[in-house]
Amino acid sequence: MTALPQTQTSRIINTLRRQIAGGSLAPGHKLPAERELAVLFDTTRITVKDALSMLEAEGLIYREERRGWFVSRPRLIYNPVSRSHFHQLVHSQQRTAETQVLACESVVASGELVADMGLAPLSRLIRICRARRIDGRTVLYVEHFLRPELFPDIEQQDLSRSLTDLYRQQYGLEYGRSRFDICPTAARGEAARVLNLAQGSPVLAVSRINYDQYDRVIDCDREIWRHDAVRIRVESRHTH
Amino acid sequence: MTALPQTQTSRIINTLRRQIAGGSLAPGHKLPAERELAVLFDTTRITVKDALSMLEAEGLIYREERRGWFVSRPRLIYNPVSRSHFHQLVHSQQRTAETQVLACESVVASGELVADMGLAPLSRLIRICRARRIDGRTVLYVEHFLRPELFPDIEQQDLSRSLTDLYRQQYGLEYGRSRFDICPTAARGEAARVLNLAQGSPVLAVSRINYDQYDRVIDCDREIWRHDAVRIRVESRHTH
Repeated sequence: MTALPQTQTSRIINTLRRQIAGGSLAPGHKLPAERELAVLFDTTRITVKDALSMLEAEGLIYREERRGWFVSRPRLIYNPVSRSHFHQLVHSQQRTAETQVLACESVVASGELVADMGLAPLSRLIRICRARRIDGRTVLYVEHFLRPELFPDIEQQDLSRSLTDLYRQQYGLEYGRSRFDICPTAARGEAARVLNLAQGSPVLAVSRINYDQYDRVIDCDREIWRHDAVRIRVESRHTH
Repeated sequence: MTALPQTQTSRIINTLRRQIAGGSLAPGHKLPAERELAVLFDTTRITVKDALSMLEAEGLIYREERRGWFVSRPRLIYNPVSRSHFHQLVHSQQRTAETQVLACESVVASGELVADMGLAPLSRLIRICRARRIDGRTVLYVEHFLRPELFPDIEQQDLSRSLTDLYRQQYGLEYGRSRFDICPTAARGEAARVLNLAQGSPVLAVSRINYDQYDRVIDCDREIWRHDAVRIRVESRHTH
């Protein structure tokens, strides 16, 4: 391979990437303002913006409204198969977790949920909507759709805690099998607003249909993750 | 919920989304030119472009250089745990598959590969790079990094076929356990070019480290999928 002449943009990208990888730009570190970076790299602000957008798309840095650019913290490693609770998972990776309940309401199931959960058409579901933060940053918007006949009076419970625990302790239900769909898509509507993203920004949608120990569908979770906040890890044995 | 007045953009998005979902705009269908859509929706070309970009970000439509906008075909459903070969998987979903070999060469392992595969520093690996098409469209760029001592003379084999089959038939090696990392990121360099994407476009990176039946690391695959081409599905039993 011959070395190609670097463009201005790739020179900035490579310098910042190396300093992030090497740890001299540590997670959470604020980058200099765009105009200072333009002076530092002896280039235009447009070129600096291009380079920063590229690093943002890779998930290495992120922007906060009116505050500037920051080095991303490591992605949460999330194994949807042998998963633990969100708070437990986040703590085990030496991070802090918070959950905020945005809504708990009765809704008519969408056509998609009717199909995915095998419900009668025009069924009602309980919709619980939550925002989850890691180290103070909202990284996950999640809607849970529960079969109301299995969870009487759940709206009176503390819904900021683990639903897995609540299901087991209050309703005697444990997760059996689950089906996960992982799909890169775009942020829309309330999910985009809660995650502080522009409409259309890339996100990772993880949809999960859960069965109980009697193999009944109990709920469906629709998670929308910031694209730079998560890495999904699955260990498997091959079936021959 | 009260109905909010729709913006021009969301009116276009909703109309196209409904016609795509309802099948009147079928997969592979070419959309009218942007200026015709602007006349049809009685709006500006800028607004039309905004709406189309949003649908592209969701993966419902895609653009081909100089040819215009098309309705996306369904995403390939891909289960990395009990996966079958690429061609077999694609055929089972009534699609056509092609594989093109882009490179087969000996390389020095990167620091990242040394760590992930547990190699001695400055090890060499065989790098096989391939482009994979579904229904004539390149959707997957994949690099395989193989331990050379396990695969003598592999460069003389037909590398457009299934490597799984080749490993078993020529080298007596079968996959044992694997570890998958699934990470939304941005397209860069050769992967972006091969996938016909602008640098920085969202892609899904799937990295897999494979062990053989004797639990030795045999290779590492780095897949880069177009964000609109794939949906990952995993079925699991919960471990209590």
